[in-house]
Amino acid sequence: MPIKTASELQTTNVEITADFWRRYRELVVKEVLPYQWQVMNDQANISISVDPQNNGQDKNSHAVANLKIAAGQMTGHHYGFPFQDTDVYKWLEAAAYSFNYHPNADLRTITDNLVDLIADAQDDDGYLSTYFQIDAPERKFKWLQQSHELYTMGHYIEAGVAYYQATGNHKALAIATRMADCIDRNFGLTDGKIPGYDGHPEIELALARLYEVTQDQKYLDLAHYFLTQRGQNPDFFDQQIAKDGDSDDRDIIPGMREPDLTYFLAAEPIKDQKVPQGHAVRVVYLCTGMAYVARYTGDQDLLAACHRFWDDLVKRQMYVTGSIGATTSGEALTYDYDLPNDTMYGETCAAVGMAFFARQMLHLDAKAEYADVLEKELFNGALSGMSLDGKHFFYVNPLEADPKASRLNPGKSHVLTHRADWFGCACCPANLARLITSVDQYLYTVTDQQTILSHQFIANRATFNNGVEIDQTNHFPWAGDIHYTVTVPQGLTTKLGLRIPGWSPNFTLKVNGKDVDPTVDHGFVYLTLTADTTIDLTLDMTVKFMQANNRVSADYGQVAVQRGPIVYAAEEADNPAPLWQYRVDPSVAPTYQYDKKLLNGVGIVTVAATKPASDASDAPLYQPLQLANDMATKLKLIPYYAWANRENGQMRVWFHR
Amino acid sequence: MPIKTASELQTTNVEITADFWRRYRELVVKEVLPYQWQVMNDQANISISVDPQNNGQDKNSHAVANLKIAAGQMTGHHYGFPFQDTDVYKWLEAAAYSFNYHPNADLRTITDNLVDLIADAQDDDGYLSTYFQIDAPERKFKWLQQSHELYTMGHYIEAGVAYYQATGNHKALAIATRMADCIDRNFGLTDGKIPGYDGHPEIELALARLYEVTQDQKYLDLAHYFLTQRGQNPDFFDQQIAKDGDSDDRDIIPGMREPDLTYFLAAEPIKDQKVPQGHAVRVVYLCTGMAYVARYTGDQDLLAACHRFWDDLVKRQMYVTGSIGATTSGEALTYDYDLPNDTMYGETCAAVGMAFFARQMLHLDAKAEYADVLEKELFNGALSGMSLDGKHFFYVNPLEADPKASRLNPGKSHVLTHRADWFGCACCPANLARLITSVDQYLYTVTDQQTILSHQFIANRATFNNGVEIDQTNHFPWAGDIHYTVTVPQGLTTKLGLRIPGWSPNFTLKVNGKDVDPTVDHGFVYLTLTADTTIDLTLDMTVKFMQANNRVSADYGQVAVQRGPIVYAAEEADNPAPLWQYRVDPSVAPTYQYDKKLLNGVGIVTVAATKPASDASDAPLYQPLQLANDMATKLKLIPYYAWANRENGQMRVWFHR
Repeated sequence: MPIKTASELQTTNVEITADFWRRYRELVVKEVLPYQWQVMNDQANISISVDPQNNGQDKNSHAVANLKIAAGQMTGHHYGFPFQDTDVYKWLEAAAYSFNYHPNADLRTITDNLVDLIADAQDDDGYLSTYFQIDAPERKFKWLQQSHELYTMGHYIEAGVAYYQATGNHKALAIATRMADCIDRNFGLTDGKIPGYDGHPEIELALARLYEVTQDQKYLDLAHYFLTQRGQNPDFFDQQIAKDGDSDDRDIIPGMREPDLTYFLAAEPIKDQKVPQGHAVRVVYLCTGMAYVARYTGDQDLLAACHRFWDDLVKRQMYVTGSIGATTSGEALTYDYDLPNDTMYGETCAAVGMAFFARQMLHLDAKAEYADVLEKELFNGALSGMSLDGKHFFYVNPLEADPKASRLNPGKSHVLTHRADWFGCACCPANLARLITSVDQYLYTVTDQQTILSHQFIANRATFNNGVEIDQTNHFPWAGDIHYTVTVPQGLTTKLGLRIPGWSPNFTLKVNGKDVDPTVDHGFVYLTLTADTTIDLTLDMTVKFMQANNRVSADYGQVAVQRGPIVYAAEEADNPAPLWQYRVDPSVAPTYQYDKKLLNGVGIVTVAATKPASDASDAPLYQPLQLANDMATKLKLIPYYAWANRENGQMRVWFHR
Repeated sequence: MPIKTASELQTTNVEITADFWRRYRELVVKEVLPYQWQVMNDQANISISVDPQNNGQDKNSHAVANLKIAAGQMTGHHYGFPFQDTDVYKWLEAAAYSFNYHPNADLRTITDNLVDLIADAQDDDGYLSTYFQIDAPERKFKWLQQSHELYTMGHYIEAGVAYYQATGNHKALAIATRMADCIDRNFGLTDGKIPGYDGHPEIELALARLYEVTQDQKYLDLAHYFLTQRGQNPDFFDQQIAKDGDSDDRDIIPGMREPDLTYFLAAEPIKDQKVPQGHAVRVVYLCTGMAYVARYTGDQDLLAACHRFWDDLVKRQMYVTGSIGATTSGEALTYDYDLPNDTMYGETCAAVGMAFFARQMLHLDAKAEYADVLEKELFNGALSGMSLDGKHFFYVNPLEADPKASRLNPGKSHVLTHRADWFGCACCPANLARLITSVDQYLYTVTDQQTILSHQFIANRATFNNGVEIDQTNHFPWAGDIHYTVTVPQGLTTKLGLRIPGWSPNFTLKVNGKDVDPTVDHGFVYLTLTADTTIDLTLDMTVKFMQANNRVSADYGQVAVQRGPIVYAAEEADNPAPLWQYRVDPSVAPTYQYDKKLLNGVGIVTVAATKPASDASDAPLYQPLQLANDMATKLKLIPYYAWANRENGQMRVWFHR
């Protein structure tokens, strides 16, 4: 397998022109960023859910205050999770991306000042984790199982790189390199360094990004070290804890010593792990780092693990919406084909992380299956994390929800049926914000064969450093007519790969108005262009009834509805409850209509169904099977990402048939 | 509603002649009682599951040792749960009942000595709870929310009454009355007494039994007090805890302060509780006490609550097997029609307690629905708690089980797929043992109209104090031909009520060989007999496909299989997994065959089914709906109570169709 290096051919700019995504991107600028800034400065009058289960409420984030205390601008104690700093960093990263499409002087002043604050908070040696700086300086790097120190600094490094790239602010990058240098001095297998790694992966992918921008091999080596050292000594965490003093009152996060090493993906070296297990977000962050580092180092063990983990996640542990994480216990993966819809987790961060992983896999292999998953996350499992008003957020993204069950069955209490204002552990909102503001970076992949892969149908105008320009127009995801106008400088020959999505094996393609019947290679159609060209790709937007593999007990005998990349859901707001009583009739062709007034404009699917003619409230709890007395009805479906934006009620993705 | 009082007509003896139950009753004598005696004396070389989730193992019960320490015969600390004493008492009660059908001099020596030990352990004032006597005498009656003191003494009172009734041992009864007197001196609304009640109901039904045998009104009044006072001051528990010192390290059972008052059925007075909520075993113990006391006091509020709670439990919260308790969290009920099959609890003790409650309800009203539930528990949800060898026990009785899911999905880790040796909290095995050894007491109810209700089809010979003898013969539950030979003393007119079970609306009845076509009144056929009579009742033993009410989402579109009172299950031992892939075809008549060699002799039901022709291991996780490629097959079903007696594997009660 050829190892990719940074290719000479590069994207120079991508402007998103798709209405669908422009609305979301402006929403982040107008609502999410100001709102989160208020929250982090304790100026928002909101309820913060203390945990994803919405137990208890808090009014304070204290995230900026922690930095001010560390910088000596305030006095007081640290407040919040030990990784509270990452809220600020992910926010900064999201803001950095937004400047690319929405210059904003006021925000820029805030972010420049924030970079100054972060620089002031950083220790002389480059260390920065306000929890330890403020309240436990003697414990730095001593409880890596739960300290999140490298996780925290990794998130800053990502933000610093993004901010530097967006604004040219060198100070932002310098903070990142000083952090990385600090970590490099402290971690490794030589010279009395700590032979360990963080309980939560993140530093690996962050260092790879820092290597990309600095081209300093040291950072790539350090990232590679963290990946190869992980799990080599399964006792590492326990040994650190024993040395620092093992007792409940020394826990940095209460109860965090309970999970076993598989939760941390640290029970054995990555190369020996057959399938990804454990905390879903840790899994996808680690996978992203693995793919990133494998691309630049060519490490065959890492490459093999990338493919092995990808296959298991996508082929055996993923919901039809792209969500992963079948259990709330440890916010974790469980086992192949175990995909319960009502007790699941499906954390927003895990869907966002799958998009990160997919993006990196596209750099390893020009296969459309990676872009299919990326698209699935963008339009379903990740996007559902945020309300249409940009002010409410899901941590858990179920495929079946019932307010009564969430309220009265403790096994489903983690499944909210309305998005929360904010979370004490606020990883998800900012993670989704940075994905949305950077989505322009997810549309093209340039291969080492100097081929431009256009693998997403998000309308855009892109320019490349060889002078090629691509203007893609469409009304996706509502329509499947994709138009490309490619401008090719005179004398240049360029190769373009167009993705044929897995959900549209039937398609038509016209080049300069003429039908062509191209070969599809791993999901891509390749065209060699020597002059300006127009391309019309028509995708199959037929509504499809989907079935799950027979090994998925939770979905057996049920169907989901999908059109293009959009997975559909029924809500009580449109269909009288209980939703489980509807039987969909796949033999009747569904109808589709775009409703510009509903939910900011969505395509509505209506399917034929039957349900019991009466609610049988007086029927016995159990009785001999009766001849069904069902009546014909219809089920109105909305895109899954848009659920829970109206009145609180039942929701369901899989239907009896 | 007429209030029942102890009627003059009484059963004098019931001898169980049914092979099915004689085997179980001998098994308890030969296996369960000696085995449990060894366990309680720490002489059994076994693994004790520390909790129902089978987490951790213990080798010690220490239950008898605790009594010896309290009696001054040993030194040391208390070990085990604060209610560890109840293991001994329930064992003693089970042994007492066994003497009625299996006189046993060796065992009688042990039990007489045990009564002496208990008497020695009892404080001079009648108090007996070894946890407090040994290690926390200053805390007696001060943390009733979690102390289980009245629960513990209640179980002794039951045992003492039973032992006295079985053996005439007055000392056993004297211990009970001294206990009850101690409680009477300490609890009530006057004279500085404690205005409270135990966190775990039991004392109420125990005091009612003590009233029955002693006819001392004081005990009935005290039972009535506990029932009417419960929940009157919702702050009672908190006030006690605050007074004693509220902190984690003062918990008598760690974590026990967490559940809210609904768990304890103490959030409001019983008369105001609309539906039963909370810990399922607490619910049925309380209900049994309510019905018991209502019978003797005529308290209309209690009577109404009995009917209200019964209706909700049986019509909206009960599994088809008779199990109750939909969630492991708090081992609790959840809400109407919430009956998940794979994450449920269905504790054996709760099924046993439902049998207690049903027995009491039969005293209130001559309605066969109570006997139907009693029968359902006896043949399904309670009986499944014990293995066929009498040496292994279930705490949780699921309707769908998969060893892989129990091992790898934490939300199902409480669902064992093989019975455990013993439990640290060993309530279930002994509870089931005392039900089995006393099952002769559950076959007849004499109404205040001097009518003998024969409501169970467990073959037996019964005598009554008016000289009537009933000899019921049958091969139930495998055959539905029920024969009664009734001997009526010359000159006597007696009224006999025969139950027509809810599962057999079609039946035939012959009296002295002649067909009769009687009226069915609330599930009973009444015959007035003036001479010796033979009766042949033929019940409908057709295999029935059962459906759940449409409001039960977990069972929607699925069928269960029942024949007579026996609910059937499919096991992987008979049918290649995965079991969820079978679609049962109810249009094909099932076949039935008794197999005397299988599982100690069981009726086997075979139903027509289809399943996918291939296991589709290479199919995508999701794909457009394909035309089914199913193949015809059969599904072999065994009685639910007998599952998990062969190799470990999947089990399922509800099937797709």
